[in-house]
Amino acid sequence: MFPDSLVKPASSKLLLCVLDGLGDIPGPSNQRTPLEAARSPHLDQLASEGTSGLFHPVAAGVTPGSGPGHLALFGYDPITYQVGRGVLSALGAGFDLQAGDLAARLNFCTLDKSNCITDRRAGRIPTERNRALIERLRKGVNPPPRIQIFWETESEHRGVLVVRGPDLVASLFDTDPQQVGVPPFSVRPAQDDAQSTALILDGIVNQALSILKDEPDANGILLRGIAALPGWSGFSDRYRLRSYALTKYPMYRGVAQLVGMTTGNAYDQLHETPARLREVWKDFDYFFLHFKDPDKAGEDGDFDRKVEAIEEFDSVLPELLGLKPDVIVITGDHSTPVPMKQHSWHPVPVLLHAADTVRTDSISTFGERAAAGGGLGQQRMCDLMSLMLAHGGRLQKFGA
Amino acid sequence: MFPDSLVKPASSKLLLCVLDGLGDIPGPSNQRTPLEAARSPHLDQLASEGTSGLFHPVAAGVTPGSGPGHLALFGYDPITYQVGRGVLSALGAGFDLQAGDLAARLNFCTLDKSNCITDRRAGRIPTERNRALIERLRKGVNPPPRIQIFWETESEHRGVLVVRGPDLVASLFDTDPQQVGVPPFSVRPAQDDAQSTALILDGIVNQALSILKDEPDANGILLRGIAALPGWSGFSDRYRLRSYALTKYPMYRGVAQLVGMTTGNAYDQLHETPARLREVWKDFDYFFLHFKDPDKAGEDGDFDRKVEAIEEFDSVLPELLGLKPDVIVITGDHSTPVPMKQHSWHPVPVLLHAADTVRTDSISTFGERAAAGGGLGQQRMCDLMSLMLAHGGRLQKFGA
Repeated sequence: MFPDSLVKPASSKLLLCVLDGLGDIPGPSNQRTPLEAARSPHLDQLASEGTSGLFHPVAAGVTPGSGPGHLALFGYDPITYQVGRGVLSALGAGFDLQAGDLAARLNFCTLDKSNCITDRRAGRIPTERNRALIERLRKGVNPPPRIQIFWETESEHRGVLVVRGPDLVASLFDTDPQQVGVPPFSVRPAQDDAQSTALILDGIVNQALSILKDEPDANGILLRGIAALPGWSGFSDRYRLRSYALTKYPMYRGVAQLVGMTTGNAYDQLHETPARLREVWKDFDYFFLHFKDPDKAGEDGDFDRKVEAIEEFDSVLPELLGLKPDVIVITGDHSTPVPMKQHSWHPVPVLLHAADTVRTDSISTFGERAAAGGGLGQQRMCDLMSLMLAHGGRLQKFGA
Repeated sequence: MFPDSLVKPASSKLLLCVLDGLGDIPGPSNQRTPLEAARSPHLDQLASEGTSGLFHPVAAGVTPGSGPGHLALFGYDPITYQVGRGVLSALGAGFDLQAGDLAARLNFCTLDKSNCITDRRAGRIPTERNRALIERLRKGVNPPPRIQIFWETESEHRGVLVVRGPDLVASLFDTDPQQVGVPPFSVRPAQDDAQSTALILDGIVNQALSILKDEPDANGILLRGIAALPGWSGFSDRYRLRSYALTKYPMYRGVAQLVGMTTGNAYDQLHETPARLREVWKDFDYFFLHFKDPDKAGEDGDFDRKVEAIEEFDSVLPELLGLKPDVIVITGDHSTPVPMKQHSWHPVPVLLHAADTVRTDSISTFGERAAAGGGLGQQRMCDLMSLMLAHGGRLQKFGA
């Protein structure tokens, strides 16, 4: 990681395109990965004119969630910059979290007559049922004076509770005991100064339990990862960049907001995005474009759909290049290998191009195995940001 | 970085050849780099018998100055081992800086009648005029009792002021306000115990200003980076190495002295250097040979001259190998790409050979793109030193 004091202003435009879950593995039959199999002439052309490598989102062997994966892309070492699960859940639900709010990940659970947990996920109730229960909680739970509460559905048994009010302290233990056969914990303070906050949340939980007590399955709630927005220094302070995020899903807008990006309205189809970026091109320096589909296909184990998603991005790439970014990077936030159907730790292919300063390598296609021999080698993903800044003429020399 | 406690003595000879600014980029037309284009049969032969890689002088994206670039080569992490600009300027001017001296980078500037800065570089006066002004200051400024002062020309508007005396404290702010339209700052202490030192320097500056006050352009001075020699543990303590530096320019002798190397007189022509090293070969264990010409050609944007400089080194290499070093490394302190005409952050090709212990790779030429696929991969330059020590049999096993 570079010292932030090296950052200097410049007029260059930096474009980061994140193909979520891009990285893959060839699978047992040693076939091509989706990225290798995709017909992607524009990516290959850019690879031959640029340079590529394999970047580790967190550390060797560590599988990132979406939050840490993106923080690394933005130059925030995810081991240093940790954010509570409640905050990520709130952002993922599209909730407009404010400084000082406490957010908790909420799981509906099943309790027996002696108040012991029999199912920590309430039989994975359907999302529609989750919505109905959340609606009951919204109507039934009365906050104490000067406190506002917000209940949000995520999916299945998962939801979010946000508590807003003066002087809330986030140092609270989970109420989820992580096992069945025991009752949920009450909300307990992890520090002395969180005692009154614990009482407020515990009162809210108890009201919720009495509202849910006659439900057949989801008759309890468990709270995890109670956290407030971190007060991190954002893109404008750290990098002197006016930054803009264009995403389809709220989770990624939320992570971008964590580092101070301006966020545009959600897009619907990827082919809209070049025109959407063009509208704001002169107003910002750094653009983060997020494309979810490769990850979804990977999680479904759908090789062909992942190939199609990559080919869809390839078809949009010429228009993105038409914006004439000084630096463009195409990569993922993590790997989601089709044979594994989940996020993985495998390093992510990175393709970087910058007309005046790139050190071209001997690679002429964009793929995992090609990138392993690329000029960028293997690096930590949180070093990508300094490479982008350097190629954009935005870092001073270090020392005389 | 390795624990210094692993160092053990041995009789091996280590030779580090630094081709300043060696690394380059292919440029927009994707041609060969100077190192790739150079006819360098001896380097290629050594690459095929040795191993190569790309090393980052400071960190990804960070462009090093000459000081940090060399400290990394010597195994001193330049982010940890920072040295003030005044010290580097004094070393660069060939001044024999002593422990306890304070060195400041001095810029001649232009002041208007109300003492406000109108040009922080005094119109970049010619170096000859700088010498004349420095001579006036040498004659005119009287130091207080027990204090000696030294004025040195660097080039154009740049010079060095060194203050020698008992109990000087270097914690002083710059007098350069880094903007025009305001007066220079007086010399102010950054810590309480620097108050009397600040008064001494301020008195010197005020005498200088009254001497320069009738000059048409360079009628003021600004001080920056006021610093003393750092008290770092040197090569003999850290590595148990008797180390010797052979350079043409004082800056590099100076940086070598910072880490405790013995320095030979400047050489004039590169072809002298094998014989010069032979004279002292039995008296030292580690030899640092510095060759400036590739960097100068890079800064001038002169591709052909950079190629010639590399070919000149190649022609001398057989004689260097004739000294029979147990470990030889050929690399640069940073990249100075011809298309960029300045230092850059691109990792530097490293070629390492050690007859008995090298793990040969599949590379048979010495060049940026070849090195990207070399056996050393991409590493931090400050790890080079432990590789050299290891290949020289100078590091113990770690743990039982």
